[in-house]
Amino acid sequence: MKVAVVVGSDSDLEYAYQACEVLKTFDLPHEVFILSAHRTPFETMDFAKNAEKEGYSVIIAMAGKAAHLPGVIASMTTLPVIGVPLSASLSGLDSLLSISQMPTGIPVATMAVDGAKNAALFAVQILALSNAEIKEKLVEYRDNLKKAVLDKNKKLKKG
Amino acid sequence: MKVAVVVGSDSDLEYAYQACEVLKTFDLPHEVFILSAHRTPFETMDFAKNAEKEGYSVIIAMAGKAAHLPGVIASMTTLPVIGVPLSASLSGLDSLLSISQMPTGIPVATMAVDGAKNAALFAVQILALSNAEIKEKLVEYRDNLKKAVLDKNKKLKKG
Amino acid sequence: MKVAVVVGSDSDLEYAYQACEVLKTFDLPHEVFILSAHRTPFETMDFAKNAEKEGYSVIIAMAGKAAHLPGVIASMTTLPVIGVPLSASLSGLDSLLSISQMPTGIPVATMAVDGAKNAALFAVQILALSNAEIKEKLVEYRDNLKKAVLDKNKKLKKG
Amino acid sequence: MKVAVVVGSDSDLEYAYQACEVLKTFDLPHEVFILSAHRTPFETMDFAKNAEKEGYSVIIAMAGKAAHLPGVIASMTTLPVIGVPLSASLSGLDSLLSISQMPTGIPVATMAVDGAKNAALFAVQILALSNAEIKEKLVEYRDNLKKAVLDKNKKLKKG
Amino acid sequence: MKVAVVVGSDSDLEYAYQACEVLKTFDLPHEVFILSAHRTPFETMDFAKNAEKEGYSVIIAMAGKAAHLPGVIASMTTLPVIGVPLSASLSGLDSLLSISQMPTGIPVATMAVDGAKNAALFAVQILALSNAEIKEKLVEYRDNLKKAVLDKNKKLKKG
Amino acid sequence: MKVAVVVGSDSDLEYAYQACEVLKTFDLPHEVFILSAHRTPFETMDFAKNAEKEGYSVIIAMAGKAAHLPGVIASMTTLPVIGVPLSASLSGLDSLLSISQMPTGIPVATMAVDGAKNAALFAVQILALSNAEIKEKLVEYRDNLKKAVLDKNKKLKKG
Amino acid sequence: MKVAVVVGSDSDLEYAYQACEVLKTFDLPHEVFILSAHRTPFETMDFAKNAEKEGYSVIIAMAGKAAHLPGVIASMTTLPVIGVPLSASLSGLDSLLSISQMPTGIPVATMAVDGAKNAALFAVQILALSNAEIKEKLVEYRDNLKKAVLDKNKKLKKG
Amino acid sequence: MKVAVVVGSDSDLEYAYQACEVLKTFDLPHEVFILSAHRTPFETMDFAKNAEKEGYSVIIAMAGKAAHLPGVIASMTTLPVIGVPLSASLSGLDSLLSISQMPTGIPVATMAVDGAKNAALFAVQILALSNAEIKEKLVEYRDNLKKAVLDKNKKLKKG
Repeated sequence: MKVAVVVGSDSDLEYAYQACEVLKTFDLPHEVFILSAHRTPFETMDFAKNAEKEGYSVIIAMAGKAAHLPGVIASMTTLPVIGVPLSASLSGLDSLLSISQMPTGIPVATMAVDGAKNAALFAVQILALSNAEIKEKLVEYRDNLKKAVLDKNKKLKKG
Repeated sequence: MKVAVVVGSDSDLEYAYQACEVLKTFDLPHEVFILSAHRTPFETMDFAKNAEKEGYSVIIAMAGKAAHLPGVIASMTTLPVIGVPLSASLSGLDSLLSISQMPTGIPVATMAVDGAKNAALFAVQILALSNAEIKEKLVEYRDNLKKAVLDKNKKLKKG
Repeated sequence: MKVAVVVGSDSDLEYAYQACEVLKTFDLPHEVFILSAHRTPFETMDFAKNAEKEGYSVIIAMAGKAAHLPGVIASMTTLPVIGVPLSASLSGLDSLLSISQMPTGIPVATMAVDGAKNAALFAVQILALSNAEIKEKLVEYRDNLKKAVLDKNKKLKKG
Repeated sequence: MKVAVVVGSDSDLEYAYQACEVLKTFDLPHEVFILSAHRTPFETMDFAKNAEKEGYSVIIAMAGKAAHLPGVIASMTTLPVIGVPLSASLSGLDSLLSISQMPTGIPVATMAVDGAKNAALFAVQILALSNAEIKEKLVEYRDNLKKAVLDKNKKLKKG
Repeated sequence: MKVAVVVGSDSDLEYAYQACEVLKTFDLPHEVFILSAHRTPFETMDFAKNAEKEGYSVIIAMAGKAAHLPGVIASMTTLPVIGVPLSASLSGLDSLLSISQMPTGIPVATMAVDGAKNAALFAVQILALSNAEIKEKLVEYRDNLKKAVLDKNKKLKKG
Repeated sequence: MKVAVVVGSDSDLEYAYQACEVLKTFDLPHEVFILSAHRTPFETMDFAKNAEKEGYSVIIAMAGKAAHLPGVIASMTTLPVIGVPLSASLSGLDSLLSISQMPTGIPVATMAVDGAKNAALFAVQILALSNAEIKEKLVEYRDNLKKAVLDKNKKLKKG
Repeated sequence: MKVAVVVGSDSDLEYAYQACEVLKTFDLPHEVFILSAHRTPFETMDFAKNAEKEGYSVIIAMAGKAAHLPGVIASMTTLPVIGVPLSASLSGLDSLLSISQMPTGIPVATMAVDGAKNAALFAVQILALSNAEIKEKLVEYRDNLKKAVLDKNKKLKKG
Repeated sequence: MKVAVVVGSDSDLEYAYQACEVLKTFDLPHEVFILSAHRTPFETMDFAKNAEKEGYSVIIAMAGKAAHLPGVIASMTTLPVIGVPLSASLSGLDSLLSISQMPTGIPVATMAVDGAKNAALFAVQILALSNAEIKEKLVEYRDNLKKAVLDKNKKLKKG
């Protein structure tokens, strides 16, 4: 039940770490990889082909601009791939379209621009399907999100 | 291991059926619902709250324009929700942004504009994680996709 | 004749307060709520369902990104809902489309990106329809807007 | 309690009539005007200045391209103005922005691209605030919207 | 042979002054006005209607967001109106479309986003048609533009 | 007082003819040219350089896609150049930006997408500055535009 | 001196053939391949890795939507890769951005949306650098383009 | 085997130098020019016409806004022209479209927004076709890109 978090460049590591923080909250084993679809195509291919054998269940891939990383990985594995468009150029519209507009046959689950945390949460939601403990934590996590909003609302009412 | 396919209007049923066709290929039980986030908010809420208890594992929700359906459902369940933006207006840019740009905490796995088939395939990829039979079929499905392309290429070469 | 001003997160409170300032100018009772369509869907639903009974006449809802808050509230009340898209991402194009492109049946009165003040003014214009005092103040308010521009023009002419 | 429906050209009358149909459902008196912000600026001004005296409560204005009509009318009246961007060019993105992005002081309640029916419904929602009969009809209208969706869903279930 | 330079708000005066600087280079009499299409519609109308009588030959109007000012002025005069979209929101895409997409019958000569200087130059090009002295200065101005580029190129070559 | 109307390809002639029709209404001598900024750069240059000597006062240039024609002509003459973006691709957004976003020094008066008639009218407005007869016709033309709208409105009132 | 023309699906063959027609004009040997970056990733990789050895000098790759094909090929060869975005969705804005916005290190020469012919011509321009015969034909080709425009212009003049 | 790097203004020189740095890595002779398509059209024309005779093999042209420079140069030479859209306005969407959307007959190889380095690399890829030494360096360059990514990945693994 491991999650792989892949970024194309070390300049994107901060987003990878945002995802990791969420995964840690759920005690989910995970590993970060720097692999570029364009600069290390063969190593990316090796990673994608072997990810399942290496024990990964879900892959999160993040990239900016012409963000091919999630799609390239998705083409070489049947594991669910979650893509995070990063706002490196054009406010992230380029990467959002490069990730979401995948052709029929090879889906990528696209998150919001810079939505690294949600990618981790979606991985958690997938893994919770077959793990009651994670499901429990997920329900709790959602509850905390709710409470945080309600607390702020209460605080506001009190002035 | 059931999949729910939800559309906001019967005019979007053709997309729901595209997803169903893919799910049938994998012998995955599924049901189609017409539920509008805006016209039947309480029924949508009931559906979303109870989907897990009703035995659904994954929810696919499709909508055009200000497509709130996937996000609204996602806010009321911890099941993975897959969103399909439909091209009802502005070439689908509005629904793509309305579905993908979800706030931190409540992810929706966004597919391409009109990407109903990929939504079903992504549901399959999720369910294949804990079901070897589906996984096998998925590998075969991918193989067939590949073969179809290679056959067309061969045919082209022969003229 | 109360106005409810709802934001999805405390980080958007500054915009809520911009609206409140305008409402204060018109001595209109108002209250600010932090309610998230996605993180507190049931509380948002409760708020929306009961807003009329609680004495609210108009609801202003502000949100960024996939801004579902105004639409979700509008789906659960027949009170006029005014939506303010906030520029949290993609310069606010995402929230503008998520709020304005509502399906037939459930309208949301969309303001400019970050147009919190205008949301309050539009609420005032609605309430002025049945309240001569507010109408008078509104005419005066507009007059002051006009005078401010004309004064600046005069000042410019004098150098 | 009259509603004025203004279009800039007779080629947009079909949208005006869509709004009128909704207004008729609510037995709301209404009148259609062809007035161009650019070709008949003074007549438009006369209309806007006098609309309140003429007994109008709400003004719906529809236009495509550089859609100034709603904003120009809004600048000359304190009545609520509802703007409908029409998809005459660039899929309606130009008119959506020309109507929604109004400066502070002069709001226009913007509807979806080609959202003529919703403009009428929003006018109804405003007028229902001070008229119990309209309110009742509005609740019923919403109920019918809901029933239509639920009926379609039921029919679907039965096959 | 006077040029009027109109902005909708004193916050846009810097752009007006950029245009004035160019007009000064050509010794063209000009005057700056602060007039808002929306906050001072009647004064704007008076200005536009009388501009020709007041001796203006060309009007430059600048505005951001839903930039109606150039179009509103153009609708009330047969003088050439040059519009400058300002980048107050959405990088200026909203004002660019609000100014350029004018309907048939009432053209506005649209410049680049924030293109205040070019508006002045285009006014000069118009006025040069019937004034040999301005034409001469214009040719010289262009020559200087050319020389500035060539000088920089030469300097670059020398290192 | 001649107007040159230039298109880059014979497939755009219909737009040139729309402009010509307007120019005929004003009895303005005009000539149409097919000249491509990219396929006939030197001939385009010759045309632009000599247009003034050849007796042209205003140049209208129309092009789609990466529409360089108006800018290229503008760079080689001090005559006013009016650019019409044509909707050959991407709904005309590409040509709108390629024509309007000219750098400081070389303005092009940009019209709406496919706004050929307005280009002719703007040429007329320029030429009317120094010709009382054209001015008179222009006032009449505007009057007719107004009357057409008012007539349609009257007809509508009568049912 | 062979050119490879690659499309991701047989539905895009018409664009491949447009490129081939141009290549035939220059007697350039070429071959068409159907290879999908996503459905046949390993075969695409094999093609790209071996293209140089197989005697190809330039690769033209065409794709719509999240068009990864040109970038994926470019990442596995040092041959020049020319990418053609196809207008399968969103008017081709998605494929244009997916192809042009490549990260530093792996360039793709992007053509216009659906610009298959220009891709072939650019291949010709590259190959003409080291082949006088092709260069000669290229000059002639350009000349013919020019003549075609000038002939149409002449024909127009004659009426 | 010289490369010309052309920018329209000295404010864009930093991008020219980014390209030069890459060209230096490959010991490729190159020269930078400041030439504006609009302010120095005839000098730009002279440059473009003579570039081949002056010994240039490839031309890189960079510009922002209505970026005509690459297209104008391409229209006057049969050398391959590589265009770099610069993000001077509208995040570079204007220049991206102005460069990429060239009409049939005159291609420009468009790079990413601000993609100056890739322009140089693409020039290298073209020149490597007929020069084994450059090819070797290119393979090495790619290898170094790969190693840099793999090193960062290793370093990450070690913590």
